[in-house]
Amino acid sequence: MVTYTELIKSLSAEVPFVGPETQERFLGSEFKVRLGANESIFGPSEMAINAMQKSANYDIWKYGDPENFELRNALALKMKVSDSNIVIGEGIDALLGYLVRLIVEPGTKVVTSLGAYPTFNYHVRGSGGELIFTPYKEDHEDLEALVAFATKHGAKLIYVANPDNPMGTAISAKRIQDTIRNIPEGCLLCLDEAYADFSKEDIIPIIDPENTRVLRLRTFSKAYGLAGARIGFAVGAKELIKSFDKIRNHFGVNRIAQIGALVSISDEEHLKKVQKAVDFGKELIGKITTENNLLAIKSFTNFVAIDCGRGGHYAKKVMDNLIKSGVFVRMPSVSPLNRCIRVTVGTEEDLNFFAEKLPEALK
Amino acid sequence: MVTYTELIKSLSAEVPFVGPETQERFLGSEFKVRLGANESIFGPSEMAINAMQKSANYDIWKYGDPENFELRNALALKMKVSDSNIVIGEGIDALLGYLVRLIVEPGTKVVTSLGAYPTFNYHVRGSGGELIFTPYKEDHEDLEALVAFATKHGAKLIYVANPDNPMGTAISAKRIQDTIRNIPEGCLLCLDEAYADFSKEDIIPIIDPENTRVLRLRTFSKAYGLAGARIGFAVGAKELIKSFDKIRNHFGVNRIAQIGALVSISDEEHLKKVQKAVDFGKELIGKITTENNLLAIKSFTNFVAIDCGRGGHYAKKVMDNLIKSGVFVRMPSVSPLNRCIRVTVGTEEDLNFFAEKLPEALK
Repeated sequence: MVTYTELIKSLSAEVPFVGPETQERFLGSEFKVRLGANESIFGPSEMAINAMQKSANYDIWKYGDPENFELRNALALKMKVSDSNIVIGEGIDALLGYLVRLIVEPGTKVVTSLGAYPTFNYHVRGSGGELIFTPYKEDHEDLEALVAFATKHGAKLIYVANPDNPMGTAISAKRIQDTIRNIPEGCLLCLDEAYADFSKEDIIPIIDPENTRVLRLRTFSKAYGLAGARIGFAVGAKELIKSFDKIRNHFGVNRIAQIGALVSISDEEHLKKVQKAVDFGKELIGKITTENNLLAIKSFTNFVAIDCGRGGHYAKKVMDNLIKSGVFVRMPSVSPLNRCIRVTVGTEEDLNFFAEKLPEALK
Repeated sequence: MVTYTELIKSLSAEVPFVGPETQERFLGSEFKVRLGANESIFGPSEMAINAMQKSANYDIWKYGDPENFELRNALALKMKVSDSNIVIGEGIDALLGYLVRLIVEPGTKVVTSLGAYPTFNYHVRGSGGELIFTPYKEDHEDLEALVAFATKHGAKLIYVANPDNPMGTAISAKRIQDTIRNIPEGCLLCLDEAYADFSKEDIIPIIDPENTRVLRLRTFSKAYGLAGARIGFAVGAKELIKSFDKIRNHFGVNRIAQIGALVSISDEEHLKKVQKAVDFGKELIGKITTENNLLAIKSFTNFVAIDCGRGGHYAKKVMDNLIKSGVFVRMPSVSPLNRCIRVTVGTEEDLNFFAEKLPEALK
């Protein structure tokens, strides 16, 4: 018999998200369109694809550089920080895991919004942390409540996603800045900016990287079309960044992902094309929504939360119907957010297929 | 100020291995031959390369299947176990990290050999575990001592690599089986079989997957030539395997790695070619060693520990000289193992370059 830690014994074998492949196996058929995981169907830059293909042929037999040196330096230039302000990880999910392990031990209080990113919560529970939830306020994360709860409960970590997932809403850069100033002493704001590349500077603040009250997270899984590569990064104070070296999997980042990410950030044309395609897709989703007498919540991401107008039970029905008809979508997990289904921007063809199936799903 | 956990405060920012790229940046020049990380310069299967290149083009925008369903099923067939006996991870390093978190909490005792795999020790320290070391015995891990220490100290975890790294030696399958029977109640043997594909059944035992005293680890980084892909797996009792779902990064494995690994195991011809090339390379290293009046320790892996004959100081000199002359090699970290340098099998050309530089390095 294996002797598990007390913490492990207390946890259930939990899966933050059921993957679409699992659902396909259950349904016995493949999805026609994949609009549920906020991936970028527009894919990565052609230049990045070429570089990754070359790497698959020539140097995949080598471990990747554990310092991620070239990528960190390129990102430092782009983010206007030092390379010592950047740590690369196996996607934001892995970085959240590492961050939580740095700060959270059994009993540590952590504040997040009710219905926000479940994988963050998964990691907090995995370190024995105690989650404190504040409700969304008009489909936005309630920054004032998050800070007030953190102060009241002596929390060590606050999670905010801006732009938000699953609602797609955003908070102004100025309000984020104000919030950072109000973070209580000894507490860190984990600012998940996975969707930053779909927003402008009115939403994405310029933050002093040496500010020890905030760590920001970015990814290549969304606008850069590299979800399958599993690569993301965190930007923060040197000392905090350095501390990741105490626990991270130093050789964890795939070599093809490193080169794919590096080349991706040099291809600004591709990024612009994706941003444009996402804007077009969001407009199209808006049109489809209106045609079906539903309400699209204004989105600052590559997905749209669609208010189905009749509560969580109904939205779940709609989602299940869409899934059965070959459209992979997801939905928020808690009330009142779960009156919505969440639809990722796809190609025009994908969205037309969704439009075709939606009326039947709403019945 | 960030509030770190007590454990994190007690740890230093440690790097289990300095990567060759870091050394290259320090030296200001690239290595001519890369014989230090036990990678497989023979690369992956052509079929796997083609599949990975296709994936880089067509579906890298999708997250990988978090259940790794197809790969687990293919491995289950190959290993003659159920798919529920297998968990896939981001290389053995990540799986070691997860395993340690399942079992080790501050104060948990863990037994390993002095000079064995440092990344395992890194993870144990990262969970607050207390490492107990037993010395190697004639360049082999001392199984009897490991079990005796585990029994005496009430250890919850024992680490054994068979075949061994860094010495390349092996213990017979029969002795491994005997050892498993003697593992004390409540303790798990972590059997690292990273180099299993270079050995036969006299070394690699057939183990009942439901035996709760042992978890075995395998990788695609060695014989399969996919070190840069970061993918490995663990085989063990269903209940232990399931418990990884409590803490693992469910979406952590790169999609290209999943497909590369899946196709690799179907290409037995390539594996045989690599095994042959490794045997040839080991013979060549043996010849080079003899020509230089050194002793090659018999290897069951894709590398050879070469006894330089004059203790750790001298071997370190030899390694440093080789590195300066463009040959990346490594060496064991502790006495008496550190009388050796460790040379990975390369191509004939690589090894000839090594042969050319060795006499000068020995001076």
